[in-house]
Amino acid sequence: MQKKDMLYEGKAKKLYTTEDKQKMIMEFKDDATAFDGEKKASLQKKGKLNTEISMIFFELLEAENISTHYLEKLSDNEMLVEKMDIFPLEVVVRNIVAGSLAERTGLAEGTELEEEVIEFFYKSDELGDPLLNSEHIKLLELADKEELAEIRSKAREINNVLQQFLAEAGIDLVDFKLEFGRTDQEEIKLADEITPDTCRLWDVSTGKKLDKDRFRQEMGGVMAGYEEILKRIKKEK
Amino acid sequence: MQKKDMLYEGKAKKLYTTEDKQKMIMEFKDDATAFDGEKKASLQKKGKLNTEISMIFFELLEAENISTHYLEKLSDNEMLVEKMDIFPLEVVVRNIVAGSLAERTGLAEGTELEEEVIEFFYKSDELGDPLLNSEHIKLLELADKEELAEIRSKAREINNVLQQFLAEAGIDLVDFKLEFGRTDQEEIKLADEITPDTCRLWDVSTGKKLDKDRFRQEMGGVMAGYEEILKRIKKEK
Repeated sequence: MQKKDMLYEGKAKKLYTTEDKQKMIMEFKDDATAFDGEKKASLQKKGKLNTEISMIFFELLEAENISTHYLEKLSDNEMLVEKMDIFPLEVVVRNIVAGSLAERTGLAEGTELEEEVIEFFYKSDELGDPLLNSEHIKLLELADKEELAEIRSKAREINNVLQQFLAEAGIDLVDFKLEFGRTDQEEIKLADEITPDTCRLWDVSTGKKLDKDRFRQEMGGVMAGYEEILKRIKKEK
Repeated sequence: MQKKDMLYEGKAKKLYTTEDKQKMIMEFKDDATAFDGEKKASLQKKGKLNTEISMIFFELLEAENISTHYLEKLSDNEMLVEKMDIFPLEVVVRNIVAGSLAERTGLAEGTELEEEVIEFFYKSDELGDPLLNSEHIKLLELADKEELAEIRSKAREINNVLQQFLAEAGIDLVDFKLEFGRTDQEEIKLADEITPDTCRLWDVSTGKKLDKDRFRQEMGGVMAGYEEILKRIKKEK
């Protein structure tokens, strides 16, 4: 399958059309950005690591009967995915307090949540990806009531699968961001990526951060963290 | 009824205990603040105007069988209210897009909403009164599911009553903030105040702002706006 036109270039990925209207090529870039693009860098091998990590997670979810847009890996940093209408929502699932949840609630980073917390943010660079409640989502017609319920339920299922799998790899799934899309047949599937760019992943015993927070917080060893994750999940696969 | 101890001093009000444990005195101050207290002023007569305006709204709601903490007016700037446990939530009801809803959604200020939008903000000066979704409210145990549903439903009822009453006075009820409390008998009642400090009120025909936005936006004529509101609602009473 060959790339045709570039449909979209984001901070960490590019999307290309192919000769098949139902399929697209997702290319993972080495670029990293944080704080709405204020902090930028190129991290060698990030695209390759994220491609492989995403693939493992998508295959794991498919094996658990959770549909995703993933079709196959094409190269070191490219995967073939199903074309969908993407809901303009960042669906964040949280198991442990960190980042903006700590700021919003005043709860200490590291507090374990009895039940996962789901948040919806409006995918809008212009507006700074603000938090939305269900009534905002209805007002903006970003998803209807049934779709929102289905997205919520799928997000919880995905959390259960990933959390258990990562625990076996000695990793706490602190929180992560998902995006969903709707196929031509009105089926809702998981889209986008699942990588250390979009998840907070902490070593279970030491609490060491193995994800993009190392980049955001100038901790160094960013790619070493990603490599550690890949090594561990490959072993559990 | 005499004031005993000052329980609380906020930006625009003071609360005093009385000899009756179930009753408190709410005193409306002339002070006005905006932008988390960054902008401050004393506006002569504001306390008096807000006391009278709140009283009219509370009596209107009581007449429509919506329970409030209001008991009676004691003086120009004091009312006797029922003591309650206040939910630490600012309940915002919106009929027309303005302020933070415009910023959050990108919808133009002035856009009329087909259905009212309700938002919950965490009453926390320290955290900057952040928006919460239902899962945050559950996590923080700010209200349980039944209480939240009742608060939502009461907020909609209050909106219906106020919106209709104000329309007859030639005023658009753009949005407003409510607070609720729980009595010793576990009854949920409306608390706090309903004033141009806590509502956006626009003249129906000219769109002229008659509320605290005149202060926030340095428009002048702040108290003239409040007086205009009082004059019109007194006539409709």
